[in-house]
Amino acid sequence: MTGSSEPFLLINFKTYLEATGKRAVELARIVEKVGKADDVRFGVAPQFCDIAQVAAAVEIPVFAQHVDPISSGAFTGHVLPESVKASGASGTIINHSERNLQLIDIDRCVQRARQAGLSSAVCAGTAKLAAAVALTEPEMVAIEPPELIGSGRAVSKERPEIITDSVRKIRNVNRDVRILCGAGITTGEDLYAALKLGAQGVIVASGVAKATKPEMVLQEFCKAVRKLM
Amino acid sequence: MTGSSEPFLLINFKTYLEATGKRAVELARIVEKVGKADDVRFGVAPQFCDIAQVAAAVEIPVFAQHVDPISSGAFTGHVLPESVKASGASGTIINHSERNLQLIDIDRCVQRARQAGLSSAVCAGTAKLAAAVALTEPEMVAIEPPELIGSGRAVSKERPEIITDSVRKIRNVNRDVRILCGAGITTGEDLYAALKLGAQGVIVASGVAKATKPEMVLQEFCKAVRKLM
Amino acid sequence: MTGSSEPFLLINFKTYLEATGKRAVELARIVEKVGKADDVRFGVAPQFCDIAQVAAAVEIPVFAQHVDPISSGAFTGHVLPESVKASGASGTIINHSERNLQLIDIDRCVQRARQAGLSSAVCAGTAKLAAAVALTEPEMVAIEPPELIGSGRAVSKERPEIITDSVRKIRNVNRDVRILCGAGITTGEDLYAALKLGAQGVIVASGVAKATKPEMVLQEFCKAVRKLM
Amino acid sequence: MTGSSEPFLLINFKTYLEATGKRAVELARIVEKVGKADDVRFGVAPQFCDIAQVAAAVEIPVFAQHVDPISSGAFTGHVLPESVKASGASGTIINHSERNLQLIDIDRCVQRARQAGLSSAVCAGTAKLAAAVALTEPEMVAIEPPELIGSGRAVSKERPEIITDSVRKIRNVNRDVRILCGAGITTGEDLYAALKLGAQGVIVASGVAKATKPEMVLQEFCKAVRKLM
Repeated sequence: MTGSSEPFLLINFKTYLEATGKRAVELARIVEKVGKADDVRFGVAPQFCDIAQVAAAVEIPVFAQHVDPISSGAFTGHVLPESVKASGASGTIINHSERNLQLIDIDRCVQRARQAGLSSAVCAGTAKLAAAVALTEPEMVAIEPPELIGSGRAVSKERPEIITDSVRKIRNVNRDVRILCGAGITTGEDLYAALKLGAQGVIVASGVAKATKPEMVLQEFCKAVRKLM
Repeated sequence: MTGSSEPFLLINFKTYLEATGKRAVELARIVEKVGKADDVRFGVAPQFCDIAQVAAAVEIPVFAQHVDPISSGAFTGHVLPESVKASGASGTIINHSERNLQLIDIDRCVQRARQAGLSSAVCAGTAKLAAAVALTEPEMVAIEPPELIGSGRAVSKERPEIITDSVRKIRNVNRDVRILCGAGITTGEDLYAALKLGAQGVIVASGVAKATKPEMVLQEFCKAVRKLM
Repeated sequence: MTGSSEPFLLINFKTYLEATGKRAVELARIVEKVGKADDVRFGVAPQFCDIAQVAAAVEIPVFAQHVDPISSGAFTGHVLPESVKASGASGTIINHSERNLQLIDIDRCVQRARQAGLSSAVCAGTAKLAAAVALTEPEMVAIEPPELIGSGRAVSKERPEIITDSVRKIRNVNRDVRILCGAGITTGEDLYAALKLGAQGVIVASGVAKATKPEMVLQEFCKAVRKLM
Repeated sequence: MTGSSEPFLLINFKTYLEATGKRAVELARIVEKVGKADDVRFGVAPQFCDIAQVAAAVEIPVFAQHVDPISSGAFTGHVLPESVKASGASGTIINHSERNLQLIDIDRCVQRARQAGLSSAVCAGTAKLAAAVALTEPEMVAIEPPELIGSGRAVSKERPEIITDSVRKIRNVNRDVRILCGAGITTGEDLYAALKLGAQGVIVASGVAKATKPEMVLQEFCKAVRKLM
């Protein structure tokens, strides 16, 4: 999935009630439908308990929001990458600013995810730290300034230099990783600006999951992608 | 479920590959079948990603192995009690020795679980701490000395005084909570000893999940329960 | 120190610059001087790096603000109870709401502190959790509702029922522990109310450490204590 | 201190009783004496509570073993960089494998340390992660494979390629940072090998702190340094 040059748009369901249980499945279906109609590549990241049902309902990539850096065994209450994979996911977010990890565990998570057959999207809040996580060689790095997450003010409008700076710093240490960005993206214009700045995709959460009409936001995103391709 | 005087036997699947994905569903079906045949009350605690499929396959209580002390919102990678409930679980383990929590979070988890419609089985490693967690008023307290977990040496044989001491200390602060015990229980004799000492149920993990023939272990458990009733 | 029936007033220096380095020593001297003049029992809890110099400068009890539940060995960056003791402290705060611990570690800290010759003041935010920590048998329990800490609104005025409820619940499980309270206490009247409600002392932080004239606040506290004795 | 081309040898006292309290001061004096005699640059990293007394007793650099990524304020039980500085330290270890930090906090600690006037020695267990922490621009990076720490088997003998690989990877992202290594270094030969491989210093703990005759080990180290210069 990450080999393609087409933008990848990952919708993070967080722990929003609007995207829990049956509503997670419904939202995933909407994302899939809009993406298919416009030939844009979307993925969804529902909660752990919803992965199996979402993955059974749609064919687009399903991501976990986190995995633990463990192997199978006596780890009650942890998230085993192999379990995430068995439930139908193909990737996982790692080190989201709402679930920060020790540096050593970011590295372990990327390795354990790969061993389990999952691709990794590792988050970081600054250009410098985005380069640092790129050194762990995940499939994707996502630059998300925490102060803009959920703010409705898009990183690509408010802090465009973070994206260009991240791209430069990441490419200095890793030529292959796909570079995503996120935080505050809610309109097609925000997305267009992000892609123009060098991002190869985005992570969007409340902008879609808490939207009154998610399909309209998603269609706007598709227009922005098409405009660019 | 916890109001009954019949013993409750909770099978913890941990993150064992033997109890992940399809094998979690198969194991849960075996547990249900044996319990029905002998009229013994079992529950199962699979991994988060397996809860929905397990809960769809069996009618016995399904527990999560952990929940986070959060309400719905922006908590990427966390376990929302409402999500656990929506996937079909009726309860959750809290503060397992492999997933120890801050005291304040044990209390928050019990409250959040209740608000979401989940009963709580809170673990503690000593009689004193079992009484401490009983003060948070969960439905169940499970006394599990960490040094015996996974050891094959049963708490009810090796440290019987921990169970009697726990019962006494817990009853001093909480008359209603169901008292479970666990750690090293692998035979019917271990279970019988535990129930004789005052436990109203047990948590068993590797003794069943990693057994060559889980149904035989479960049937032995049933005999031990029937012998007592 | 805790055997006495006289109130114990512990001044927590937190990580305030006003109470760091030389200013920690100066503040400790003021606390000692006022206490001696009025025969009121004060203690001070400076930062780790200031314990030795404060303990060398005053004769009143010096507390650490935290210890780690470790024994000597390879624990780089941790706080060994024996090191705290060797630097001249006689006690330690444990589980402050700004440094919450796992339940199991609260118990370990109390035990390790005792082995090192330190008394423990374990904090909790509610009456229920105050009783829970009292079960670990520390020398002192301090009830501090986190929402009032640093608020300037005194627990003894805003939430008097928390103190009476804590005293009742604690005494049900522990007859000997000294019961402190804290949060928002800044005036003699606040302190008087706390002692009237059954507290046997208080923890005060910003009310003294960030006061323009700490000695005046401390003298007011002494008046409140004398009024009661 | 870090600008010089001379090797820097940092002795980590961990939480060894052999290097606690008065014995920390004694050990620091021995380190200083041997270093002066042979004109070799040593530093010492005692426990928090011992920093002030050690710094008052010796003139060589004193490091903390950890700082917290906080500013002054209401952070009971935390380690404020300004407090470490005020007690006489000139630097701090960060992210030791016995005190691993979140990636975001490593970056914050380096920045907070610098603001407080402390230099930082950030640890990492692999070449890849050493480069990652070098991106946070500390004064020093220390590569220490956790599996060799305290093993008596020197990183420079057992895994020489980790050092050369680290040097290469670090220099790709940071030309200025001083590169230390550590783990298992107990003899002059171990140290010589480390410096030959490109390390600009070492961190040594049990090899000195738990040695029967620390001065003899230190003198051996000096010979190794002199042989190289």
